[in-house]
Order: sequence, then structure tokens, then C-alpha cells
Amino acid sequence: MNKKLVIALGGNALGNTPEKQLELVTSTASTIVDLIEEGYDVVIGHGNGPQVGMVNLAFENSYNNSKDTPMMPFAECGAMTQGYIGYHLQQAIGKELNKRNIDKQVVTVITQVEVDKNDEAFQNLSKPIGSFYSKQDAEKIADETGYTFIEDSGRGYRRVVASPLPKNIIEIEIIKKLIDQKVVVITVGGGGIPVIKKDNWYEGVAAVIDKDRASAKLALDLKADMLLILTAVDKVAINFNKENQKDLDELSLEEAYKYIEENQFAKGSMLPKIQSCIEFVEKSENGIALISSLEKAKDALNGKTGTIIKKFSN
Amino acid sequence: MNKKLVIALGGNALGNTPEKQLELVTSTASTIVDLIEEGYDVVIGHGNGPQVGMVNLAFENSYNNSKDTPMMPFAECGAMTQGYIGYHLQQAIGKELNKRNIDKQVVTVITQVEVDKNDEAFQNLSKPIGSFYSKQDAEKIADETGYTFIEDSGRGYRRVVASPLPKNIIEIEIIKKLIDQKVVVITVGGGGIPVIKKDNWYEGVAAVIDKDRASAKLALDLKADMLLILTAVDKVAINFNKENQKDLDELSLEEAYKYIEENQFAKGSMLPKIQSCIEFVEKSENGIALISSLEKAKDALNGKTGTIIKKFSN
Repeated sequence: MNKKLVIALGGNALGNTPEKQLELVTSTASTIVDLIEEGYDVVIGHGNGPQVGMVNLAFENSYNNSKDTPMMPFAECGAMTQGYIGYHLQQAIGKELNKRNIDKQVVTVITQVEVDKNDEAFQNLSKPIGSFYSKQDAEKIADETGYTFIEDSGRGYRRVVASPLPKNIIEIEIIKKLIDQKVVVITVGGGGIPVIKKDNWYEGVAAVIDKDRASAKLALDLKADMLLILTAVDKVAINFNKENQKDLDELSLEEAYKYIEENQFAKGSMLPKIQSCIEFVEKSENGIALISSLEKAKDALNGKTGTIIKKFSN
Repeated sequence: MNKKLVIALGGNALGNTPEKQLELVTSTASTIVDLIEEGYDVVIGHGNGPQVGMVNLAFENSYNNSKDTPMMPFAECGAMTQGYIGYHLQQAIGKELNKRNIDKQVVTVITQVEVDKNDEAFQNLSKPIGSFYSKQDAEKIADETGYTFIEDSGRGYRRVVASPLPKNIIEIEIIKKLIDQKVVVITVGGGGIPVIKKDNWYEGVAAVIDKDRASAKLALDLKADMLLILTAVDKVAINFNKENQKDLDELSLEEAYKYIEENQFAKGSMLPKIQSCIEFVEKSENGIALISSLEKAKDALNGKTGTIIKKFSN
């Protein structure tokens, strides 16, 4: 039986425009098919930060300028990006598989992820999305819509939404079935479309689920052998960007907790990746986590680079 | 074994805004679950005319007004609508299944549909999309982008794209696997993301595939027992809207051809539905096609209304 590998793709695997994205997914697909050739059953989670920002902004601009298209709720913008990014990824991976004569299908599953409406993130909205507004305009929109705005880095006022933890992947049983059938699955795009329980079912909510946290949840649900988080650096470092920067080959859970305590990992950047790895490694039986770059993914899987996070250090 | 039913949902099953769509999919879902309760394995195709128009227009407006979001190619706009509509449909169907204690999963599959680049539709662009422009602006954009514009009903100039026939559903094997697993599948949204063969694989192309034609292709590939096209009327009629209008209970292929010859069916409206039914019935072994309204779908399946298209008349 093949090992199950959940890959969390970062923004650097995609692009800011459709043309750039189509170009970047080509090399992303090449790396992913390398990993498939190494004998893994691969499941792909991915971010959507720049893309959902773009969709949200296009609808905002269009509505503000002409009113001939409606405002688009944030959860629906997320659903759109799952289609948009998934299409490019599945096309590029399909092409690469075909080139290497590997008979495998690729599918994008539109995926809802439940979050808890009592998650404290809803009390403390922290994720800025969309355009910058003047104070007056922000207050006017806030009055009309109930949106929350904060002053963002001196550049103006921006809407903020919650960034709650993933609780439940609604389509998980389907994802399991597809993996059992050896299909390459693209899922939890942008961390999943955020939904909360309502009337015994789910409804969309304006929120951003961290894609690494969602991928960790996915890896746990699938009892994956490995969670591979691909980012901009080859290895995790402590004392990052200082003279005494130290790149890490491996991290035990104990060390990871210690470094978090020391604020070694930047909030909104390396910290959620480390937290996602801890979550997966701690709760899975034998799973290990690996952080590396897209370019070095294959080498990292073969132990040549990357940072491994596991229960105990050697 | 359950009978396999491919449903093609028309625009009246969806809405022009996200709020309206969320409302309409509730009753759409109720009808679909009725059909599941009748014992059918259901696969859903759907249109995206108003929705892809909206996405395309939002990006066009935003780009024209501010340039802070890029232009979005039409195939990518279609991919976005598959995510957007699929999300609402799968949520609503999931809710209805849960309400009736039916243990079934629902999935939206992002679906590419190959068209032939030599399809004569590419020589004769006929499908208007996006905003109206003045003659000067249309000519300027045509120069910059290579788009084709036509004068549309005296209201200005609009971009036109091809409306080619579906040739090959790229994700068909995955769809088959999901149906075998009793999953309710939403696919070929908007007729599918149109792609053409390029470098041994596929790439997106600006085109609109008729959703009824794509659903007929889907029904054929799946060896479905029935293709059910849901539209605004309960039955197909000849002499439509005239004093001698006659609603039809059934249509043999021979009659269908005759009525087409007589121009009984409106181009871009009932005609492609009849053609889709002919295509399916003619090429399938025992399949029959049924045209009715969303509201009367269950009655139609039980022979109480609707128009049946089959090989021979009784």
C-alpha cells in the first residue's frame, strides 16, 4: 500500500494573475508528480490569499462603480477561488501525469469546512480582506453592512474577518473514497469554504481558515503518513534573519513548543505552519510532518533537506 | 440496481445574485431529493449563463475602472461559477438529504469539457457575453485583445464567443467512480469549462458549451437510463404561443426531426433541448429523455406531465 501524503501548497505555488498562475502551476505540477512517482498517494490542500482578495476586490470595485453586479459574500468568493485554482492545478497535474505516462485522474472537490461559531476568533477579527477605505467610507459601509473595519498599517481602513480553526471537513467521506480509488484530490482550497452549523446543517460565514491548519485536519482525518507543508524556505530556522540563524533538520514536539514560547516563529507566517505540524504529529499515531520549499520538496522527502517535525527527537 | 438519472438544471433553478441563488437552490434541492427518494442515482448538470456573465462583468468593470484586478479569461470565469454554484447546490442538497435522514454525500466536481478547435462554431461566433460597448470602445478593445464584437439588438456592441459542441468530458472516469459509490455528483457546470487539445493535453478557450448538450453527453457516457431537462415549461409545445398551441406528451425521434424542420422550436431556447434529447435517445441503447419544469419534475417522472422523447412513438 502506498503512503498517504497531504501537501499544503503556499501562495508561491500559485500567482497573482490568471496568466501567472497558469505558468506557476506548471512547475508546481511537476513537483507534485515527482512525489507521486516516489510512490505516494497525494492529496493537495492550497492557499487562496491573493486569489480570494482579487475576486472580492473585483466584485467590490464593480459594485462601487456601477452597481450592475451584486456584492459577493466572502464565503462565495472562496468557493469561486476553489474552482479557479482547482481548474488550473488539475489541468497542469493532468498534463504532467500524461507526459510521464502515469494513468491517474485528478479532481478538485469543492470543499466546505465547518468552524465553531463560538470560536474566539469571531470575537477578535484579525484577518484583513479587500480594499482600503477612508475612515468616513469605512464607517458608512460598516453602518450599511455590519462589517468590521480596522486601520491597517497607516494605509487606510480595511474590512477584517475572523480566522477560526477548522473543526470538520464536510466532504471528507467523499475525499476518502476518491483516495481509495487512487485519484489525486485537490481539496480544502483556501482552507475550505468556511461554514457554521445552522438549522441542523451549514451556512457560509465570512472568515478565513488557515490553509495549513485545514491541511493538518485533512491529514488527521485521512490518517495520512505525512503532512508536507511547502513554503518559501527550504528549512525552518530559529533566530531567523539574525547573525546566529540556525536552520533545523528536525524538531521534536518538545522543541517546537519551546521555540514557540520563545517567539521564534513569526505570527501569520511560520507560526501557523509549526502549529499545524504539531497538531498533526501530536494527534496522529505515527504521522510525521515536513516543512520545505516547493523546489526542494523531492529532496526533502528523501531526507536531503527540509525540517521534520516528529514526536521525539532522535 | 438504481436507475441512473442525469438532470440538466436551467437558469430558473438558480438566481442572479448570491442571496437569490441561495434561496432558489432550496426548492431546487427539494425537487432533486424527491427524485433521489424515487430511487434514482442522480447526477446534476447545470447552466451558468447569468452567473458567468456576472463574474465576467465584475472583472471587466473592475479592470476598466481601476486596473487593480486583472482581466479574467472566460474559461476561468466559468471555473469560478462551477465553484460558486456547486457550493450552493451541494450545501442545499446536503441539507435536504439530512432533513429526510438520507445518508448520502454530495460533491461538486470541477469539470473540463473538450471541444474541437475545428468545430465550425469557432468560425461563426454567436454567443454574446459581458458588457455593452460603444462602437469606438469595442474597436479599441478588439484591437488590443483580438476579441470579436457584434452589434447586439441595437443596444450596443458586445463580445461574442463560440458555442461549440461537447466532445469529451475530461473528468468522466472520476464521475463514474463517484456514482458507483452512490455519491450525488454536480458536474459539467455551465456546460463544463471549455478546453481544446494543445501539446498533448488541454487548455482553456473562450467559449460557451450548451449545458443541455453537455448533460446529454454526460448521460451517454454514464449509460444513464434517463436524461431529464428541467426548464420553465411543463411540456414541450408546437405552435408555441399561437392559438393552436399543442402541448406534447411524447415525441418520437421522427416527430422531433419533423418539428425541427418546421422551425417549431426556438433557437437558443427549446431547440438545443430537443437536440440534446435526440442526441441522447438516438445514441443510447434504451435511454429516454424527458423535458419538464422544476416544479413538476416528480410528476413528470411518474408520467403525469412533461414531454417524453423516445426512439419510437407508442
